[in-house]
Amino acid sequence: MKNIKVPVEVSARHCHLSKSDLEKLFGLGYELEKIKQLSQPSDFACKETVDIQVGSKKIEKVRIVGPPRGQTQVEISLSDAVGSGVTPPIRLSGDLKGSVGVVLQGPAGKVELIEGLIVAKRHLHCSSDEAKRCKLKNGDTVSVKIGGERSVVFDNVAVRAKDNYKLCLHLDTDEGNAAGINKMGGGEIIR
Amino acid sequence: MKNIKVPVEVSARHCHLSKSDLEKLFGLGYELEKIKQLSQPSDFACKETVDIQVGSKKIEKVRIVGPPRGQTQVEISLSDAVGSGVTPPIRLSGDLKGSVGVVLQGPAGKVELIEGLIVAKRHLHCSSDEAKRCKLKNGDTVSVKIGGERSVVFDNVAVRAKDNYKLCLHLDTDEGNAAGINKMGGGEIIR
Repeated sequence: MKNIKVPVEVSARHCHLSKSDLEKLFGLGYELEKIKQLSQPSDFACKETVDIQVGSKKIEKVRIVGPPRGQTQVEISLSDAVGSGVTPPIRLSGDLKGSVGVVLQGPAGKVELIEGLIVAKRHLHCSSDEAKRCKLKNGDTVSVKIGGERSVVFDNVAVRAKDNYKLCLHLDTDEGNAAGINKMGGGEIIR
Repeated sequence: MKNIKVPVEVSARHCHLSKSDLEKLFGLGYELEKIKQLSQPSDFACKETVDIQVGSKKIEKVRIVGPPRGQTQVEISLSDAVGSGVTPPIRLSGDLKGSVGVVLQGPAGKVELIEGLIVAKRHLHCSSDEAKRCKLKNGDTVSVKIGGERSVVFDNVAVRAKDNYKLCLHLDTDEGNAAGINKMGGGEIIR
């Protein structure tokens, strides 16, 4: 599992919506409009955005990532949270228990969540085959080095292996900026 | 120079002003009011703030760090620059040639700079004695590991050794957030 090159993507703040919250925000029977396929085959960026209220701070036009999921989840960076009075926990996607509350405002209505706001824990997506080839398994942690002017080694990168995933390190915007990566780049698993 | 523990500080966006720009912004003969001593004995946070225009983005209430310097310098993070249309270069303090322009607005007037806006390159302050003890010299680069949930190794950390400096790693807010450090923390020089 050493010296394996991986693509790197930086995720800006975004929301995943449950089917019922989607309808509360955009109207009964509403369907999301895909504008861009994302690197993970199941995920796509949508035309739709919502405004969110994080503590005392309003953040406008937060992109929705489709398709709908079981539970609504809002991912922001710690920089985004500055001045809001709240500090979302660093969590893997889907691990929302005891996370922070957030209010979403769409054109048709509002959704007030008592939990669902997180800062994404950095993670390495890979398919089950890629995991096997790299001698990794779901739940492992690895360290990934990013080269260049702002060279960084990210430890504690969670491996997320699943059949329909594709090899890619996902960072949030703070991590991307700290490593000098704007939207996309490359790294290497070093241990 | 291995396994040396260092304090870590995160610098939020701030400005250093030249004496003449200070007077343009705040009025003739104006003196900055110190509200907090910073870790480097020469530096202090001031009561005064200015609004800055970075490309198409206005950022309000940017803290001034005193005392006045030879040249005005504005330090922001790459997260701060999002949506502005400009990308400031990553530079050490004082290295402003060919950096990005910025407009500062104070209560008494405005200063339009064609260069002076940077993202601070991460750096390790230390006194000449501390440098000697750590077998480092001004201009060296080291790697500093930050532990914890968001453990990171920052490579390419510039060593800035000077008599009146004090041992401390300075990160910007993107780097601090990427390492899970809010304002202050600790790290270790690992190579």
